[in-house]
Amino acid sequence: MAAAPPGSPQDRSRFMREALRLASESARAGGGPFGAVVVKGGEIIARGANRVTASRDPTAHAEIEAIREACRVLDSFQLDGCDVYSSTEPCPMCMGALYWARPERVFYASGREVAARAGFDDQFIYDELARPVGERRLETRPLAIEGSGEEFDAWAEYEGRVEY
Amino acid sequence: MAAAPPGSPQDRSRFMREALRLASESARAGGGPFGAVVVKGGEIIARGANRVTASRDPTAHAEIEAIREACRVLDSFQLDGCDVYSSTEPCPMCMGALYWARPERVFYASGREVAARAGFDDQFIYDELARPVGERRLETRPLAIEGSGEEFDAWAEYEGRVEY
Repeated sequence: MAAAPPGSPQDRSRFMREALRLASESARAGGGPFGAVVVKGGEIIARGANRVTASRDPTAHAEIEAIREACRVLDSFQLDGCDVYSSTEPCPMCMGALYWARPERVFYASGREVAARAGFDDQFIYDELARPVGERRLETRPLAIEGSGEEFDAWAEYEGRVEY
Repeated sequence: MAAAPPGSPQDRSRFMREALRLASESARAGGGPFGAVVVKGGEIIARGANRVTASRDPTAHAEIEAIREACRVLDSFQLDGCDVYSSTEPCPMCMGALYWARPERVFYASGREVAARAGFDDQFIYDELARPVGERRLETRPLAIEGSGEEFDAWAEYEGRVEY
């Protein structure tokens, strides 16, 4: 499964300790208790902590913050050759973001059940996404109108498009 | 299922047309062919289009952009009483973001299979998230270290915490 040598256990513990330090620091400041770091070439290149309530931004999870910061550092929308360390198992939003960012590996210290016990919706959202769209608690519905789908033709026709 | 009166079919078509217009506009400018709007009280309060390659930010999907903008407008991390219209079924990242933002309803014009045919990973990511963590294509692993979980104690102890 793993390809490149992924760093020593000591390195990994050090990176995870930093993610946990960010999480505790956030919690002590009233933010969500979550932290994450992005590592490349044996160095931490980006850090993130939960900023949902502070920034009034529901997307400002630690992993999203760290991914965005790492992409700024790398000037790229891909985390080639990077590892991501998160204090807690990423929620579906963050796991989705990680798939789009395509790092090499993702590590997490506590599982989603620990977040659930603390009152966070991570497990609930995983369960919801596993249901058919029409059976979810958040009402989600197809609404096709004339012209739906034409935007994909425009995309296919644009010669300078960058795939991602 | 629905509670409050959700607007006329004409209104809904108008909002979706705007999401599709944003999607086509993005595609013609070389961005991903995706658009979204957030509606509150019968008015569009925020718009988003895909900015992944333009912003070099893998999280800059149309829905994420629209959610963040709407939260700025409302000065809130929750989309109370809002509907979200997306040109395509939201990917797991965006669907997760919607669950955290808690709008009333989500509408989409094209399903995930249309995005898949155009070469996007939406369906792949849904399939991946349905697998156990250890069986995914993106290597994702627990790495518990001493002190893991203490950040949740700090969160529980902080009296001024804002739940989300």
